[in-house]
Amino acid sequence: VTVDREDLIKSSWTDNAAAWTESVRQKRIASRALVTDAAVLAAVRARTPSRVLDIGCGEGWLCRVLQGHEIETVGFDGTRELIERARAASPGLYHVLTYEQFADNPEAVGSGYDVAVCNFSLLGEDIGAVIRGATEVLGPGGVIVLQTVHPCADLPDGCRYEDGWRMEEFGALGSDFHTPMPWYFRTVGSWIRAFTAPGLDLIECAEPVHPESGQPVSLLLTAGRAAKAQ
Amino acid sequence: VTVDREDLIKSSWTDNAAAWTESVRQKRIASRALVTDAAVLAAVRARTPSRVLDIGCGEGWLCRVLQGHEIETVGFDGTRELIERARAASPGLYHVLTYEQFADNPEAVGSGYDVAVCNFSLLGEDIGAVIRGATEVLGPGGVIVLQTVHPCADLPDGCRYEDGWRMEEFGALGSDFHTPMPWYFRTVGSWIRAFTAPGLDLIECAEPVHPESGQPVSLLLTAGRAAKAQ
Repeated sequence: VTVDREDLIKSSWTDNAAAWTESVRQKRIASRALVTDAAVLAAVRARTPSRVLDIGCGEGWLCRVLQGHEIETVGFDGTRELIERARAASPGLYHVLTYEQFADNPEAVGSGYDVAVCNFSLLGEDIGAVIRGATEVLGPGGVIVLQTVHPCADLPDGCRYEDGWRMEEFGALGSDFHTPMPWYFRTVGSWIRAFTAPGLDLIECAEPVHPESGQPVSLLLTAGRAAKAQ
Repeated sequence: VTVDREDLIKSSWTDNAAAWTESVRQKRIASRALVTDAAVLAAVRARTPSRVLDIGCGEGWLCRVLQGHEIETVGFDGTRELIERARAASPGLYHVLTYEQFADNPEAVGSGYDVAVCNFSLLGEDIGAVIRGATEVLGPGGVIVLQTVHPCADLPDGCRYEDGWRMEEFGALGSDFHTPMPWYFRTVGSWIRAFTAPGLDLIECAEPVHPESGQPVSLLLTAGRAAKAQ
């Protein structure tokens, strides 16, 4: 039996939509509350954008925060149950759209974005088409901001540092998460290669650390076509 | 008393020149023999260069290997005792030149290089001037290849993931090394920032792993002005 891990990712989000929304809104994920929420927000705001696309926006927290800074947002996500919660929580524009649908027709979400942001939302193996799609809807000088778990953080004992599938059990998030999620691990170099493959220049490679342990929490990349002109 | 760590780096190489030369030539450094020698050689040869500058060439092993592939080499190093050993071992061109002297007048080593390579040779805090100098002596389409200890490898317990000075005791290399060497640790992002600061594009970010443990051994970056034209 071949299990399509990309399908398992989708079904896990549907199953965990309520628990996930609670976790985010109650700020139960320590690394987000302490480090990565502020880091991605700062990386997006550093571009002083008028218009931001949130790729894999989930229940919409980042769109809501950006809206609070007078930034126009559009969010999309493949999980209907999360988009319904996003729509109920703020008046921003949200689309139910899978990554395959987005890649087939990026302008379904509009265009002319100053920033397209992927915050812990690229979880599968095939991310090239989404990144290419994001590149196509950027306006002049636009950039993509991508945050992911730092590849050197919490590498399990005996686990090789190489691209491959792993399983997230959500153990740290409590018993309301019923469905584990496969996710595709990438090395730093692999993230950079995937991210710059559509002809983008890497503008920034930041690695926010945990304020207490000093260990890297996330990898936060910014890339765009316009690096030379800045 | 202010100790200038950059001076301590220089004096440690002078003191350890004989022991270092033996270690390299007897292939006593396991990570080099297993992983990083072949990795840097492959990264340089991938550019099919005619002419290579070896920055901080030490006793000259990389120049000798490249010469064996019909590549013209020029090596320089601030440690006279190492350059003397390099000159005695192969007929390539070697200069005694500190990084400060190189930065002040890069063309002292010639120009028109297809590759300038820094193999574990940028050890101090101020590396911007050397990288700028290397950029100035590249020919059209030329690149800089930089290999360094992977920032996520062997991070000591309790050591924060942030730029700063550390001390190498050479304990793994035996009792012939009498003088420890301060070296400046940089994060992945910090290496990339320093490396691309003179207006270079990052072309490749490789992370060779140990064949048995699967853990990252080195960070191996390639950057150049000509990424767009390739």
